[in-house]
Order: sequence, then C-alpha cells, then structure tokens
Amino acid sequence: MESTKVKKAVCLISGGLDSAVTAFVAKDSGYEIHALTFDYGQRHDREVECAKKIAEAVGAAEHKIITIDLRALGGSALTDEMIDVPDAGGEGIPPTYVPARNTIMLAYCLAWAEVVEADAIYIGVNSIDYSGYPDCRPQYIQAFQKMANLATKRAVEGNPVKIETPLIKLSKKEIIELGVKLGVPFENTWSCYRGEDKACGTCDSCTLRLRGFKDVGVEDPIEYDDKKSP
Amino acid sequence: MESTKVKKAVCLISGGLDSAVTAFVAKDSGYEIHALTFDYGQRHDREVECAKKIAEAVGAAEHKIITIDLRALGGSALTDEMIDVPDAGGEGIPPTYVPARNTIMLAYCLAWAEVVEADAIYIGVNSIDYSGYPDCRPQYIQAFQKMANLATKRAVEGNPVKIETPLIKLSKKEIIELGVKLGVPFENTWSCYRGEDKACGTCDSCTLRLRGFKDVGVEDPIEYDDKKSP
Repeated sequence: MESTKVKKAVCLISGGLDSAVTAFVAKDSGYEIHALTFDYGQRHDREVECAKKIAEAVGAAEHKIITIDLRALGGSALTDEMIDVPDAGGEGIPPTYVPARNTIMLAYCLAWAEVVEADAIYIGVNSIDYSGYPDCRPQYIQAFQKMANLATKRAVEGNPVKIETPLIKLSKKEIIELGVKLGVPFENTWSCYRGEDKACGTCDSCTLRLRGFKDVGVEDPIEYDDKKSP
Repeated sequence: MESTKVKKAVCLISGGLDSAVTAFVAKDSGYEIHALTFDYGQRHDREVECAKKIAEAVGAAEHKIITIDLRALGGSALTDEMIDVPDAGGEGIPPTYVPARNTIMLAYCLAWAEVVEADAIYIGVNSIDYSGYPDCRPQYIQAFQKMANLATKRAVEGNPVKIETPLIKLSKKEIIELGVKLGVPFENTWSCYRGEDKACGTCDSCTLRLRGFKDVGVEDPIEYDDKKSP
C-alpha cells in the first residue's frame, strides 16, 4: 500500500485570536501543521505561552519559536517601552505598528517552508477589523507572493509556496464564528497590546475583539481588567 | 545657517568583497552609512570580524550586528555542518544556497530603514559572476521593491525606501576595479565558503574572486591555502 504524500503548511501562530483560527483552518484543510512563533521582544511573554497551547491544540507536527531582535531596531509601541500604547480611536497608522514585521515573519516562513517542503504558508492577516497596518492588506500579500515566486530555489524549479490568508476579507464577527465552528480554544489566545496581567479592554486590539464576541453573542473566555473593560 | 538634511542609507555589510565595495559606493554617493551585519550561524565568524573592519573603514555612523537563527531552520551547506561545501563547477543552484536569505536580510533592512529614516538600502547582490542564487537576480530585487512599496508606514505615506544594487550588472573584474578606485581595503574582506583559517581557493566563491583579481591584474591581499590554491 502506497502512502499518499502529506500536505504540509507552515503556520504563523502569534498567540492571538486570528492566528489561532487560521491554524485551525489549515488543519481543517488537511495540512500537517508546522507551527512558527516569533518572540520579538513583545511587552509580555503571554503571547508566546498562548502560541504553545494553540500549537498543541491544533496538533502541530512541530513548533519552532524563533527569537528575533526587533527590540534592537526599535520604532514601535509594541517593542519599545518608551512609546505608549494608545486607546482605540486614533487616526492613521497607530504607534503599535511594528516596522516591516509581517515582511520579516513571512521571510522566515518562506525559508522554513523550503526546508520542510511545505506547500503553503498560513498567516492570519485581516484587512477588515484591523489596526490599519499596511502589511495586512491584500495588495501587500499579493506583492509578497510575487516576490516569493522569484526568491527561492523551489520557486525557480517551478514549485513556489502558496501564501494563504483565509481571514483577510472576514469581519471579526465572522472570524470568531469560524473559530467557534472549528473548536478553537479562545481561552488560550491573547489580543491585548498592553503588557498587563489582564487584558485592558480599551486598546485597539481589545476593542475589536470584544466587539466581535458581542456581535457573535458568545462570551469571551479571557479575563479583562474590571476597572477598564466595558 | 540651515543645515541640509543628511541622506542616510542602510548598508548590508556581510564581510565579503561585494558588500564592501557596495558600502564604499554608498559613501561615495554622499550617504551617511548605517551598517547592518547578520550573524546567521555561518561556519566561521571571520566574516563578522571583516564586516566590523569594513564598517569602520567606510566611516559608518553606526553598525548593528543582528543574530538571526537560520541554523535553527537548516537546509544549507553554509549553516548546516552536515552538508558539504562543494568545489566550483557544479550545475544548478548549489548546496551553499541559504533558503530565503536575502529576503530575510532585506526585510530587516526595511524595518531598520524605517526606524532611522533612511532613504536607501544598499545590497551587494550580483547576477553576473555569482553562484546562481535566485535571490540575487534583478527580477527578484524588483519584486522585493514592489512589495516594500506596499509594506511600510512610510511607503503608504508616499515615501518608500529605494533598494540600491550598484553591482548587480557588473562582472567580478569590474567590481574589483571599482573597489580599487574607491580605496576598499580588500584585506579585510572574506569570500571563502569553507570555514578554515585560510581561504580554500577552490570553492565557487574563492574561484570567482581569484579570477576577478587576476583579470584586473592586482594581487588579492588575503591568504590562500597553499595546498589547494592555483
């Protein structure tokens, strides 16, 4: 009896809600999951702890945690203690933007996908209910795909890796509904931009998350700071 | 008296000959140099030592050395002790190819260029006398530029960084002639793919370098292994 070839996917798992749903979508599509998480000097390591639990829950074949030195480069409220995280409601690209973060993370995914011979890279970017980061938009992902098609040995040999963004056009409500359907353990996801013990409930990321759960009519299982949350 | 705005460039300095000439070209074009070197688990740290000397020689305003975890990903003769470095003359993309290396390094450059407000990124890729890596070709660089134009806050705000590849169409002979003209200290550059005390003289990189110096009629100031060199 011949075994059929295993379809592999490199999945970026950040510890957040969107990447958790994305990993479960990849699993549901029949992929063996090779999970990749970046420790990039975030304000707290809770995200990395959540990523470990999600990788386990989705049954990942392996989980690599790579330390990258974004703090050394500076320039973001998420990696630089000197820059404050604002509440939701500001205009333009917010100070939580990390310069070229998705480009750096996707570049590592591209490398690892070539090494493990993965057919796809899954990333949970979203351009509907998001913080306005330029590297979450469909046109950015398309441009990255075109570059990737020229960048690697496998692409030159006619077998480029496909970048999959199953959430890119979904609202937060639709993402949470999808996660409920696929059995995502939301209690092991973390979205807050602030590095406190409980989620603040007021930053841009908490605000989007809370509104999403409210729209679905499901309770968000994580704890919020009582003093701040609505 | 008003001071004119300083033009800044992020320069990738690897410790090799091409990136040294590239940094001197950037300097000659009037840029303040922000040097960036990657320690990616190469077989030897001589390259990083050479990069420090070149950054100093070119008068860099600062020099960052970033450790990236390519050895954790594996898949190349340059980062994996289990894969042998071949002599020159093989066909196709050689085992010294590091998956997505230039994509990862350029992604970091893009991030740092945004933080320091650099106008340009200089990288010493070359598509004439090179080892056949896909991410050294002009079409790859053009695709990376298009992606970069969509990736960052500054690009969205109408001020994308320009990726400069002054050597991309030059022969090794022309690169060395340019370096001689600009006063590049070639004794502080290292090209050999093998991690020995002296350059081997027989790997693809040594072969290209030696032929280049011979074509220019200048002596290569670095030492070669007598047992192997021509």
